[in-house]
Amino acid sequence: MKALVFDNELKLDNNYPMPEIKAGDVLIKTSMVGICNTDYEITKGYMGYKGVLGHEFVGIVIEGDSDLIGKRVVGEINLACNACDYCGRGLQRHCPNRQTLGIFNKDGCFSEYFTLPRENVIVVPDNISDEEIVFIEPVAAALEILEQVKIEPRHKVALLGDGKLGLSIALVLNAYNIDFIHIGKHNDKLDISSKMGSKAKLLSEISEADKMMFDVVIEATGSKGGFETSLSLVKPRGTLVLKSTIAANEGLSLASVVVNEVTIVGSRCGLFAPAMRLFESKKIDVKPLISRILPFDDALGAFELNKQKDVVKVLLKF
Amino acid sequence: MKALVFDNELKLDNNYPMPEIKAGDVLIKTSMVGICNTDYEITKGYMGYKGVLGHEFVGIVIEGDSDLIGKRVVGEINLACNACDYCGRGLQRHCPNRQTLGIFNKDGCFSEYFTLPRENVIVVPDNISDEEIVFIEPVAAALEILEQVKIEPRHKVALLGDGKLGLSIALVLNAYNIDFIHIGKHNDKLDISSKMGSKAKLLSEISEADKMMFDVVIEATGSKGGFETSLSLVKPRGTLVLKSTIAANEGLSLASVVVNEVTIVGSRCGLFAPAMRLFESKKIDVKPLISRILPFDDALGAFELNKQKDVVKVLLKF
Repeated sequence: MKALVFDNELKLDNNYPMPEIKAGDVLIKTSMVGICNTDYEITKGYMGYKGVLGHEFVGIVIEGDSDLIGKRVVGEINLACNACDYCGRGLQRHCPNRQTLGIFNKDGCFSEYFTLPRENVIVVPDNISDEEIVFIEPVAAALEILEQVKIEPRHKVALLGDGKLGLSIALVLNAYNIDFIHIGKHNDKLDISSKMGSKAKLLSEISEADKMMFDVVIEATGSKGGFETSLSLVKPRGTLVLKSTIAANEGLSLASVVVNEVTIVGSRCGLFAPAMRLFESKKIDVKPLISRILPFDDALGAFELNKQKDVVKVLLKF
Repeated sequence: MKALVFDNELKLDNNYPMPEIKAGDVLIKTSMVGICNTDYEITKGYMGYKGVLGHEFVGIVIEGDSDLIGKRVVGEINLACNACDYCGRGLQRHCPNRQTLGIFNKDGCFSEYFTLPRENVIVVPDNISDEEIVFIEPVAAALEILEQVKIEPRHKVALLGDGKLGLSIALVLNAYNIDFIHIGKHNDKLDISSKMGSKAKLLSEISEADKMMFDVVIEATGSKGGFETSLSLVKPRGTLVLKSTIAANEGLSLASVVVNEVTIVGSRCGLFAPAMRLFESKKIDVKPLISRILPFDDALGAFELNKQKDVVKVLLKF
């Protein structure tokens, strides 16, 4: 089968072996996938992962649980043991025994076929298109912020970063009626956010008057500079939500975290069920985030396209 | 007057000018002071501070508010505006207009006389000795952790670091009936903690079985290595309390904070009133932390003594 594989280099393999179907697995025929910056970071060495890339998908179940066969599905990306304390608390995404689709010890979805455990799979309602629901993973990751941090109407909130991650978060904050300022470097991307309802501001317009003025700052730039700006914006005793492992990997100074008693909340994957409700009830519209939809055969070119500053989301269609 | 001054170098000045008494100030004649690692860090450039060092003291009011004259007092170290939002919320220690005794824009207490605003001063009950109450500032800083983080009986708690800061925190955790493991490098210091009621463990005894096993980890080593160990011990979705600006200044990687959705809580100064209640009710005994009490004239030698690994607290007496 066709698969986009990373093994020291990124290549489109037309003869990758079909996945092995284990007990409890379903086999999914991929319809559409989305490229995430994590995929790109893996090609630079993140997680030391080698194998089929990809964790954002929509597809059709073709083997496994008879109730699911022929159904259009998405799926949670963390494959958990469902036996440990974390799994018992509904925190499968923190299971110490987990594999993660296309990120850790499990071939991803950038291939014609792949498998997932039956319990990871969620059927997509008919009123949601493939182009929309392929965004469920980043939307769930954005929702994770609201599972972790209680944002109150009195809070001043800033979101830093106008890339894929930042715009997905902006969608969710607007859907939840949260008043916030979206700070970014790109007028075209901030325009997308403004149309969702965000108050947008260019990073160059941030002034001394904004310093230490926000109760909650969400860092979604993925850069050390973005982290430092976020830290300068957050109030004493305020909260900084850290969404990107990439920025976090760089050497950071936390001196002002101590002096100003800031709380940093690391935030990663979220649950799919609440994200699905947002899509089904049409509370979010992800379509303005789609820059291009290309055939899967153009995957390598799509990866290059993903690096361009004016590009938000690139989707691949089978 | 005599004063221990840092101005590129540390020196004992026998002719330092008497402090100016402003409206609302009291003049305090110093009885006893404690050396904190922050004092030592200032001599290495921390905060760029120059002037009289010191923020841990007990003394007698000799000028100012007539109700206070002749009273034995301690005092909050942050001099706030009492007009801003933070002050209105009882968070004078986060007042953006604050000065900090012996740390920022305000001569400290390592001198025969110094001033504080009247509202910073708290009278010491007779049943507490000078040697005890001189510890009120570090005990208040330890209490700050419990103001910020709700530690529940079901939580597994670790405290890292057996220096002055770590032992002050151990005192408070024991006083509050919190079950925790105190991890350090020094048998003699851990013995002091064990006698308070702590479960002590040498850092070298930490094993893989301890990794990601603690709901709350309190980092009080002041080193990058200590921060990294703390991060390795904290559970997914757990809390790491960061007490030291010194460690925080080094370049740290927060990748696992994101992956494991850890919350980092920066923690600094605390309120004196609850700390005073601990002393008055004899719920804590700080005396085992006193390594030496020296005359103030030996301040430079005391600073050297403070650097020794087997020394906990050095006090100076006037």
